[in-house]
Amino acid sequence: MAHENQNKPFLTTRSLTPENQETPIEFLRSELIPSKYFFRRNHFLYPKLVTQNFILPITGKVINPFTFYYQHLLNMTPTTITGLLECAGNKRSKFEPKVFGEQWEEGAISQGQWRGVALRDLLAITGLLDTAKEVLFEGYDYGTHEGTEKNVRYARSLPIEKALHLDTIIAYEYNGRPLTYKHGFPLRLFVPGWYGMASVKWLKKITVIDYHFKGPFQANDYVYYPKDNSPSFPVTTVNVNSIIQNPLDLAILTTGNHTIEGLAWSGEGIITKVEISFDGQNWVDTLLTKRHEENYTWSQWHFHWNATEGEHTILCRATDSKGRSQPTEPMWNKKGYGYNAISKARVKVK
Amino acid sequence: MAHENQNKPFLTTRSLTPENQETPIEFLRSELIPSKYFFRRNHFLYPKLVTQNFILPITGKVINPFTFYYQHLLNMTPTTITGLLECAGNKRSKFEPKVFGEQWEEGAISQGQWRGVALRDLLAITGLLDTAKEVLFEGYDYGTHEGTEKNVRYARSLPIEKALHLDTIIAYEYNGRPLTYKHGFPLRLFVPGWYGMASVKWLKKITVIDYHFKGPFQANDYVYYPKDNSPSFPVTTVNVNSIIQNPLDLAILTTGNHTIEGLAWSGEGIITKVEISFDGQNWVDTLLTKRHEENYTWSQWHFHWNATEGEHTILCRATDSKGRSQPTEPMWNKKGYGYNAISKARVKVK
Repeated sequence: MAHENQNKPFLTTRSLTPENQETPIEFLRSELIPSKYFFRRNHFLYPKLVTQNFILPITGKVINPFTFYYQHLLNMTPTTITGLLECAGNKRSKFEPKVFGEQWEEGAISQGQWRGVALRDLLAITGLLDTAKEVLFEGYDYGTHEGTEKNVRYARSLPIEKALHLDTIIAYEYNGRPLTYKHGFPLRLFVPGWYGMASVKWLKKITVIDYHFKGPFQANDYVYYPKDNSPSFPVTTVNVNSIIQNPLDLAILTTGNHTIEGLAWSGEGIITKVEISFDGQNWVDTLLTKRHEENYTWSQWHFHWNATEGEHTILCRATDSKGRSQPTEPMWNKKGYGYNAISKARVKVK
Repeated sequence: MAHENQNKPFLTTRSLTPENQETPIEFLRSELIPSKYFFRRNHFLYPKLVTQNFILPITGKVINPFTFYYQHLLNMTPTTITGLLECAGNKRSKFEPKVFGEQWEEGAISQGQWRGVALRDLLAITGLLDTAKEVLFEGYDYGTHEGTEKNVRYARSLPIEKALHLDTIIAYEYNGRPLTYKHGFPLRLFVPGWYGMASVKWLKKITVIDYHFKGPFQANDYVYYPKDNSPSFPVTTVNVNSIIQNPLDLAILTTGNHTIEGLAWSGEGIITKVEISFDGQNWVDTLLTKRHEENYTWSQWHFHWNATEGEHTILCRATDSKGRSQPTEPMWNKKGYGYNAISKARVKVK
C-alpha cells in the first residue's frame, strides 16, 4: 500500500471475566510490543493491589528465609532480557477436532524488554537447603478452578535448575517502564523460553520446596494429554513456531509483486531457517531479516513473491538451531496446548 | 459472575488498509452501540474531508436539480430511526468451503439511533421525471477495485420505490451526535432493512437515473452467486439471523444454572420467535425480552438452562413475522454473503 496507514488495530477480545485478549500480531511489525498491545491472559479476575504486593518473602527449604522489599530489588544489579511470552494455548482454535477453552487465534504472543533481578541472586541471599527440589511461585490472583467450591491461588513451580537459570528473573519493568498492573505490577516472574503460564504475575510469595508441586495449574492444566492416551507430560518449553503476517489467510490479492512476511520463534536455540512452499513438496528459504543471537526473541522473515492469477496456499515452516521444525500435523492434545503445525495462508489472486 | 466487569472489549481488527474492524458484539448488551464500537467496513482508504462534503447535489432525471447544503438538511423536519446495519459479509468465516475475502466472524453488525432527513423529502423538492428508475448514490471514497488500474468511486443505486420509502434517510446524526468521520460524516445514506453496502457513506452526490446501474459494487460485488450456477441475484434485504452471546462457542462451563442469551434480527417484519435446541430435533421457545414493534432493531432473547455434565451443542433459530426462519444449512455463495444458518455454540460442562 502506498499510503501511510494511520488506522490502529486493537486487542482481540476473547473473554472479559477474566480478561483474555489477543495481541493483533498480524498488524504489528514492532520488535517491542507496547504494553497496551500485549496479550492479556488471566485465569481469574484481577487481584486488588495492596501494600503487601510490594513485599516478596522467600521461605521454605532455604537457609535464611528473607522478605525482599520492592526497593531492594530496584537497588540490586538488574538483568535486562528482550524476550517473548507465548500462551501455551496460542492457536488453540486451529486444532481439529476442536478443543474446548479460550479460542486463541495467533495472537496470544507478545514480546518486549523485561528488566528485573535474576532469581538466582535472591536465592543466593536466602541460600538453599540440600533438599530443595522446586521453587513455588504464588500470585495474588485467585478464584475457583473449574467448578471447585474452594478458591485457589494461581501458583506454579519451576525445577530448581530452571529457577537458577541466569535469565529467570523477577521482573519489575517492561519496555523501560514499571510493569502495568494488568501484566503483573509490581513484580512478576519472567521465564524465557517457557510458555507464559510459568511467568507468574503479581508475585505474592516464593517458597522453596522439597517435593513435586501438584497444583491445578501444574498437574491438571498445562499438561499435554495426547489423543492416543499415551503418557501425559507437562507443558514447558515453547515449540518452534511461526506466523504469516502478510498476506492474511483467505485474502484476495492482485497479481504481481507481494511481500510474504511473518515471524518465527522457538523456546530453545535460535531460528536458523524459515521456508515457504506453495505445494507442500518444494520448499524455499525466506530471508531472515532479524536473526537474533539472543535466544528469546522472534525472528522476522520475508519472501518476495510474484503472484499469478489463481488460488494459492502459502505454507511456512520454521526450524531452530536444535533441529526442531514445525510439523505438518499438529500434536493434538485434549487441552489444546502447543499448536505449532506448519503455518498456512490461502489466497486468491485476480 | 458476581463481580462487576470493568474490563473493556475492543473492536476486532480484520484489516487496516482499508480499515475493517468488527464490533465485539458478544460482549455488548446495549441497544445503542456506541460509535467507537460500531463495526468499520471500508472498501477504500478514508476520503479526505473537504468543504465540498457539506454540499449534496441532486441531479439527473429530476425536474429541478438542486444542491442541498448541510444546513438545509439540519433545518428540515428530521426523521429518527433506531436500526441496525449489518455487513452482507457478516459471518463469512463460517462458510464451508471457505470463501475468500474479509473473514468476518459475527460482529459485522451494529445498531443505534440515526437521525436525518427522509430522502423522499429531498426528492419532493427536486421532483422526478417519469423516466426515473433508480437513484444513484456516490460517496467520496474511491480507489482501485480488484486489480483494475482505474480508480472507482464507491457507488450504489436504489430502486426508486426503496429510495422513496419513508424510512430511507440521509443521516447526519448517530446516537444524538453528528456522525463520526469513520462512519460517513457529514452525510450518509441509511437504508433500514438492507445490508450495509446500501447505506453509502460520505455522500458526494445523488443522481436520479433512467437505467439500471451496473457499478462494480452492484453488478460484481454484493451479488449472490449460488454454488450450482443457478441465476445470480443482488444482495438486498437482511436475512433473518441470530447470535448466541452467551455462552461463547467452545466455552467450558460449570454445572448448574446458566442464562443462554443473544440477539435475533431480520430485515423484514419483526422477530416473532427464537427457539433453541440441544439435539436439532426438539425446539423450545426462548424468552424475547425486547420484542420491538419497530422493524429495524434486533431483539434480545434468553433461556434459563440447568447445565448437566458433558458436552452440549446449543442451537438457536430465529423466525420473523414474514415466516422466514434460519435454515439448517447456509446458502453457500461464491462471494460469501448473507450467512444465516442456525446459530451454534458447543460447550463442555464439568
